[in-house]
Amino acid sequence: MTEAFVFSIFGATGNLAFNKLFPALYQLYQDKKLSNISMVAIGRKNISETEYLLEVERSVQNKLKHYIHNTLTEFLEKITYYQMDFQEKNSYEGLKNLFEQLDTNINEKANRIFYLATAPSDFSVISQNLKDSGVLETTAHKRAVFEKPFGYDLNSAKEINKVLTRIFQEENIFRIDHYLGKEMIQNIMTIRFYNHIFENVWDNKSIDNVQITIKENEGVEGRGGYYDRSGALRDMIQNHLFQTLAIVAMEKPESFETEQIRNEKVRVLENVKLELQNIEAKNIVFGQYNGYLNEDKVEKNSKTETFVAMKCEIDNKRWKGVPFFLRTGKYLDKREAEVIIEFKKTSMNKEEESIEPNLLIIKIQPEEGIYFKINTRKPKTEREIMPVSMDYCQSCNIYYRSPEAYERLLWDIIQGDSTLFTRWDEVEVAWKLVESIIMHCRNKECLEIYDKKTKGPEGAETLIANYNRQWWSVEDLERAKFDF
Amino acid sequence: MTEAFVFSIFGATGNLAFNKLFPALYQLYQDKKLSNISMVAIGRKNISETEYLLEVERSVQNKLKHYIHNTLTEFLEKITYYQMDFQEKNSYEGLKNLFEQLDTNINEKANRIFYLATAPSDFSVISQNLKDSGVLETTAHKRAVFEKPFGYDLNSAKEINKVLTRIFQEENIFRIDHYLGKEMIQNIMTIRFYNHIFENVWDNKSIDNVQITIKENEGVEGRGGYYDRSGALRDMIQNHLFQTLAIVAMEKPESFETEQIRNEKVRVLENVKLELQNIEAKNIVFGQYNGYLNEDKVEKNSKTETFVAMKCEIDNKRWKGVPFFLRTGKYLDKREAEVIIEFKKTSMNKEEESIEPNLLIIKIQPEEGIYFKINTRKPKTEREIMPVSMDYCQSCNIYYRSPEAYERLLWDIIQGDSTLFTRWDEVEVAWKLVESIIMHCRNKECLEIYDKKTKGPEGAETLIANYNRQWWSVEDLERAKFDF
Repeated sequence: MTEAFVFSIFGATGNLAFNKLFPALYQLYQDKKLSNISMVAIGRKNISETEYLLEVERSVQNKLKHYIHNTLTEFLEKITYYQMDFQEKNSYEGLKNLFEQLDTNINEKANRIFYLATAPSDFSVISQNLKDSGVLETTAHKRAVFEKPFGYDLNSAKEINKVLTRIFQEENIFRIDHYLGKEMIQNIMTIRFYNHIFENVWDNKSIDNVQITIKENEGVEGRGGYYDRSGALRDMIQNHLFQTLAIVAMEKPESFETEQIRNEKVRVLENVKLELQNIEAKNIVFGQYNGYLNEDKVEKNSKTETFVAMKCEIDNKRWKGVPFFLRTGKYLDKREAEVIIEFKKTSMNKEEESIEPNLLIIKIQPEEGIYFKINTRKPKTEREIMPVSMDYCQSCNIYYRSPEAYERLLWDIIQGDSTLFTRWDEVEVAWKLVESIIMHCRNKECLEIYDKKTKGPEGAETLIANYNRQWWSVEDLERAKFDF
Repeated sequence: MTEAFVFSIFGATGNLAFNKLFPALYQLYQDKKLSNISMVAIGRKNISETEYLLEVERSVQNKLKHYIHNTLTEFLEKITYYQMDFQEKNSYEGLKNLFEQLDTNINEKANRIFYLATAPSDFSVISQNLKDSGVLETTAHKRAVFEKPFGYDLNSAKEINKVLTRIFQEENIFRIDHYLGKEMIQNIMTIRFYNHIFENVWDNKSIDNVQITIKENEGVEGRGGYYDRSGALRDMIQNHLFQTLAIVAMEKPESFETEQIRNEKVRVLENVKLELQNIEAKNIVFGQYNGYLNEDKVEKNSKTETFVAMKCEIDNKRWKGVPFFLRTGKYLDKREAEVIIEFKKTSMNKEEESIEPNLLIIKIQPEEGIYFKINTRKPKTEREIMPVSMDYCQSCNIYYRSPEAYERLLWDIIQGDSTLFTRWDEVEVAWKLVESIIMHCRNKECLEIYDKKTKGPEGAETLIANYNRQWWSVEDLERAKFDF
């Protein structure tokens, strides 16, 4: 049983609250983990609590087919809707009273969680106002959660961080990267460090290249205003792809303690080498899908990238010479997120051009699991080689249906475990990398237009082909199997 | 199209001819590979050719559900039944005439293949008589095939070999070990040498132990006379298990040429270390199933072993310190043949006793394929470890249904490719090993009685437990999965 706590959400009338946060909270509640919860939903919108709760109810019902009617009713009763303007200092007074009232109701100092599901430009002002108005004046724990993106660039991130760290202790600041909550991202460390067969080959002696792909098959979907000021580099590469890269490439931590893991992740990110200048091959390609300029709230001559492909290296002993290829974009041919480890060919393979390398693919979404491509002898032949796949589909197993990323993350916040959240120095070094790409592409045109529902711009294919490699994908591999 | 040839079988009224050789020949014929074949079936039995052909027809129909009626009739017309006593010099005169007649019929010197599906005690006399009576006097190729076992012990094998090599050239002597014709045994070299991920860990730095298991779930099945003089050591270990061990453990051959592969196989077998004396732990266990003494043609006080479990090592740089556990027997709990590579635990695993090692299992029969056991993170937990399996079932794939071992081997004999047959020095070194086990068990009682349909004698469990290891089996692993 957890200590009593109040879970407050700023930006509670936004998509994230309805589609992710409340369904995750409800699921935890239904699993009987949150009997001591109260929730405060804070939004600008002038609607009644009844209206608001109706919308929460609808989204939970929508997301979770297996909800229990009575339990959901009980859950909704624990939510208070509080309407206010985040900029307005005075309205925090009422918020303070509300928190105090909730404590009085249970005759206990409840922990206070502030989940800022807002634009990063609101992070500082909300935090400052919480402090100034006395909402943080309680002897219980105070935890602040910040949705991505954490800033718009290195400077704004630094600015925000300076304010926050004056108000909250680092251990109580939770910078969300919901990719870290995904089952298979969490699994990467286990796969690496609990399997001799993988731990032993996890270096430049055995690995030829690493690919991290997050493809989306939809566009900005009504989020044009936010997206046009952000773009794929800030929205995806800075957090999800760099974080995934860090987990794939980090050295083995001394222990699996939060700070040890974060130390190793930062160390890897600090050693990322971009080589954007002075090279013949392009190491960065931006794309924008055809039709993006017609999206609602997007500037008519916007140069915002909806696709990024890039190559980098990690400048340490383990990874010297191994290219890491990252790729993400909107409106691509499919929804698919994967980490692909391509192994070197054996001396036998090298002689025979047509023989394919071993691939270990960690499938993150939509299917979760592990895919392993090896070579065997084609039956009835002398020694013809045939690639075959071995597949472990975790999400196919009904006993182990994976929780949503947010379910895990919210539970960790409630328990105060920040392992799956990014520490400031991780955020900072990622912004530094992104900054240098922005600078590079400002001087040199990076942007190509691509058609919707394709693999993205031609340049992404050229980028990897210049290194004599190719992009892999489980779906393509599986389709090819039936083409003989 | 192959050159014309006559395929003659000595011991043509035995089980092997009916159940394996003719079905395999027919399958090759139906596949249109053997248009130039004639067959001579040679047996002691005084039956008419019509009676004989009826029995061949029945066994082919029985084994191959997909036979084609007209093709089978055509095939049967190519068989001549020739009745004779192998010991009787004079009867070879008629055989010579028959071969000449067949040449005259097609107006061509057909290659002559002599398949000796007889007891090894007949190998020398038949070969000598073939020579003395002039059956070998042809300008075409003459190939001789010898069924296992090749001798009863080192001395008899040497005796036989001395005679044969005077009569046939080594390249025309085919010593059968039908295990080498099995798809997955052939696959071992491909798995090892065409997959970086396996090639790279195939040594004592990564492999904890190797297990080779061939379990049968039936008894001697009417072959008590032969079996009681042979036993599991001579019938299985000397050939199938040592050959499999050689392929698993050999160094990479310079090329995949026949003689290069055989050179490497011999080299491994020469380095096998048994350590039967002067040790505390038992390294060899014999078993006899309860009821064996009541089998037809078995001596009433027989000490013949129907089960062997043993531990050996390979005394070279690659394998120093890695135990190889071999196990085979009749009337066990299941029919299952597997090669199991157990990898070392990682440094993480070592701390946690309960975490299981990685296993690579090459499934030889009844299912053919590759089974891979790795550790992943159990969903919904912090970092609990859960073993999962990845399975590639080759025999499940209808596109690639594997040919019978004999189909492959007979085709190789016809083409003159002896890669999948054992060279004399391989046979010799295997007999030397077996001989030292026989000597050891003569002085020290090795035999334990075990009940039918069990895992075999208790001693086999103790043998491996003394090395802090356990026998693995795909079937047991898969059953355990549903026990949570």
